[in-house]
Amino acid sequence: MEDDHVSLAHGNGGRFMRELIEEIFARHLGADELDVEADAVPIALNGGEVMITTDGFTVQPLEFPGGDIGSLSVHGTTNDLAVAGARPLYLTLNAFIEEGLEIAQLDRLVASLAKAARESGVRVTAGDTKVLRRGEGGGLYLATTGVGVRMPGVRPSLKRIEAGDAIIISGSVGDHGTAVMLAREDFGLTGDLVSDAGPVFALTERLMAFDGLRFMRDPTRGGIASIAHEIKRATGLGVRFGANVPVRDPVQSVCDMLGYDPYYLACEGRVLAVVAPDQADAAVAALRELPEGRDAQVIGQVGESGDRVILETPLGGQRFLEELEDDPLPRIC
Amino acid sequence: MEDDHVSLAHGNGGRFMRELIEEIFARHLGADELDVEADAVPIALNGGEVMITTDGFTVQPLEFPGGDIGSLSVHGTTNDLAVAGARPLYLTLNAFIEEGLEIAQLDRLVASLAKAARESGVRVTAGDTKVLRRGEGGGLYLATTGVGVRMPGVRPSLKRIEAGDAIIISGSVGDHGTAVMLAREDFGLTGDLVSDAGPVFALTERLMAFDGLRFMRDPTRGGIASIAHEIKRATGLGVRFGANVPVRDPVQSVCDMLGYDPYYLACEGRVLAVVAPDQADAAVAALRELPEGRDAQVIGQVGESGDRVILETPLGGQRFLEELEDDPLPRIC
Repeated sequence: MEDDHVSLAHGNGGRFMRELIEEIFARHLGADELDVEADAVPIALNGGEVMITTDGFTVQPLEFPGGDIGSLSVHGTTNDLAVAGARPLYLTLNAFIEEGLEIAQLDRLVASLAKAARESGVRVTAGDTKVLRRGEGGGLYLATTGVGVRMPGVRPSLKRIEAGDAIIISGSVGDHGTAVMLAREDFGLTGDLVSDAGPVFALTERLMAFDGLRFMRDPTRGGIASIAHEIKRATGLGVRFGANVPVRDPVQSVCDMLGYDPYYLACEGRVLAVVAPDQADAAVAALRELPEGRDAQVIGQVGESGDRVILETPLGGQRFLEELEDDPLPRIC
Repeated sequence: MEDDHVSLAHGNGGRFMRELIEEIFARHLGADELDVEADAVPIALNGGEVMITTDGFTVQPLEFPGGDIGSLSVHGTTNDLAVAGARPLYLTLNAFIEEGLEIAQLDRLVASLAKAARESGVRVTAGDTKVLRRGEGGGLYLATTGVGVRMPGVRPSLKRIEAGDAIIISGSVGDHGTAVMLAREDFGLTGDLVSDAGPVFALTERLMAFDGLRFMRDPTRGGIASIAHEIKRATGLGVRFGANVPVRDPVQSVCDMLGYDPYYLACEGRVLAVVAPDQADAAVAALRELPEGRDAQVIGQVGESGDRVILETPLGGQRFLEELEDDPLPRIC
C-alpha cells in the first residue's frame, strides 16, 4: 500500500479501492476462496438443511484483551449458526471503514478475522468495502453473514422447552462485556480481564448428541438474563437461576465497582442450553471434556407458567431479574 | 413505538431493541419470513448451484429521487446475483442505525426495502440491528447478503471474453450518480434527474438465453469505465466505446456543470453485457422488449491485446478513459 491511512479514494471503485481489497482483504483471506472479481460466488452445500444468519459488529475499542472486531465478527456469526444446530461453512463480509483508519491496524484486524475463520472451519467467500468520511464512522464497522448446514435430526427451539427443564451454561458469564468496557475506559485497571470470545461449535456439537436437548443460545447482548426473558416470552414459563452462576472474581469486582450486573453482560464464547432434567448431568460432563467447557454447570431450571425470572442469592434470598431497558452499553459487540 | 427517535437503548438487547425490531423490521418484512427469535434460519434451495454475494450501503441522503437506501440495499445485492447468472431468492439485512434517527424515517426506509424485496422476488430471512452513538454513524448504513441459485448452464465470466465481442448497455448511464449528488448538494437544480435504481433480473434472464453471452456486470461504483478496466486487467484486451453511449440530457448537463464524467458515475439498475458479435443485435432486441431495456444498444466492442480503454467522441475524435483514481464521490451507494 502506498498510504498509511485509509482515504476516501479507497472507496471509489477505482485503483485505490482495488489495491486495498487485493493487498489487505484478499491477501489475508486467500485469493482462492475470495474471488474479488466476481459479483457473486458459488457455495457448495452437500445436502442437509441450509441455515443462514447475519450479525453486525461495532465493538469499541477495535482491539481488546482476548480478541478484536475481526475475530469477533467470525465468532459472533458462526456461533449463531452453531446454537441453531448447524455446522458453519461460509461467511460473507462487509467492512465500513472510516477515512483515516490506520492501514496497519486494518491489516491486523483482517489478519485476525482470517485466522478466526480458519480456526472455525469457515470460508470467507464474498465481501464488500465502503469508506466513510472522517467523522461518519467509528473507525470500523463489520457485518458478516454465515451459511451452514443443520446437523441431521437436530431442531433446538424455544418451542421445545418444558417446565422443569435444566439450564446449563458452558462457562463463566460477563467476561467479554467487562473486558471491552475496561479496554475502552481508562479506569487504570489492568490484567485479569480477558474476553471469552471464541467459537462454540465444538460445545454445541457435544450437546446435539442428547435427544433431551431443547434449546441453545449464545448469551451476547443482554446476557443470560435476556435469554431467560426470551424463554419466558416464548413459553410463558419462568426461569430460576441458582446462586452458582459462574462469575469470575475480576468480573464481579468490576461489576461491583461500576454498578453493572454480570447477568446482563455479553459473552461471546459461551452457550446457554436448556436440557431435559434427566440428561443434564451427562450433558455437563460432555461439555467438561472440552477445554472451553471445563466450567460448565447446571445453573438453573425452567419454572412454571406465570413465574418470573429469578436469581437466588448466596445467602438464600432471591431477586427478580427484570427485562433490560435503559442500561445501554453501546458498542460492546 | 413510544419514541420518535432512535436512542442507544434501542440497541442494548433489551425491551426497546425488541420493540424496534418487532414494530419496524418484522412488521414490514413479514413475521413469517423473518424469524426474529431464531439465531439462524433455514433456507430452502431446490437444486442448482448456490450463489452468494454481499454489499454495503451508505448512500447520502437516505432518500433521493427514484429510490432510497432501503430499496437500494435490495437492488444492489440482488443485481449482483442476477449479473452472475443467478435468480435471487434470499436476503439477510444488517442495519447500523445512528442514535437520533427519526423513527418515522426508519419506518419509511424499511417499508421501501420490504416493497423492493417483494417486487424482486426475494425473502428477507435474517437480520441484525446495531445502534451507533450520535456522531458515530451517518444516519443509517445497511449491509445485505443475497443468496440465489444459478440458472442451469449459465457461466458468464470475464474469462470468456474474446477480441471483437460486442458491448451492450441496457439503458442510459450516470442517472443514479447524478440524482444522488443533486439530492445531496443544494445546487438549486430540480426535477428531471431520477435514479435508475431497480432490479435487473428480468434483463439478465433475457440475456442468458443467448449462448454467445460472455459476461455481465452492473455498472455501480466507478461506472462503465471501471468495468472496461476490469475487462482489460482480466483479459489484456482493450475496450472501445462508441460515441453513442446513452447519457440523458439532464445527466450530461449536470456533469458538464460540475465537472463529472458520466462514464465513471454509478448506475443501480443497468446491465453491461459482453456478447459474441453475431448475437449482439438479437440480444439488444430481446432487452428492448422490456420497459427497463427500451434504450438498450450496442455501445462498443472489445479490442485487441495491448489496446487501451477508449471513448469515441461525436466529432470523430477519441479519448482515453483512465482507471479511476482520486475522484471520490463518497456515499453514492
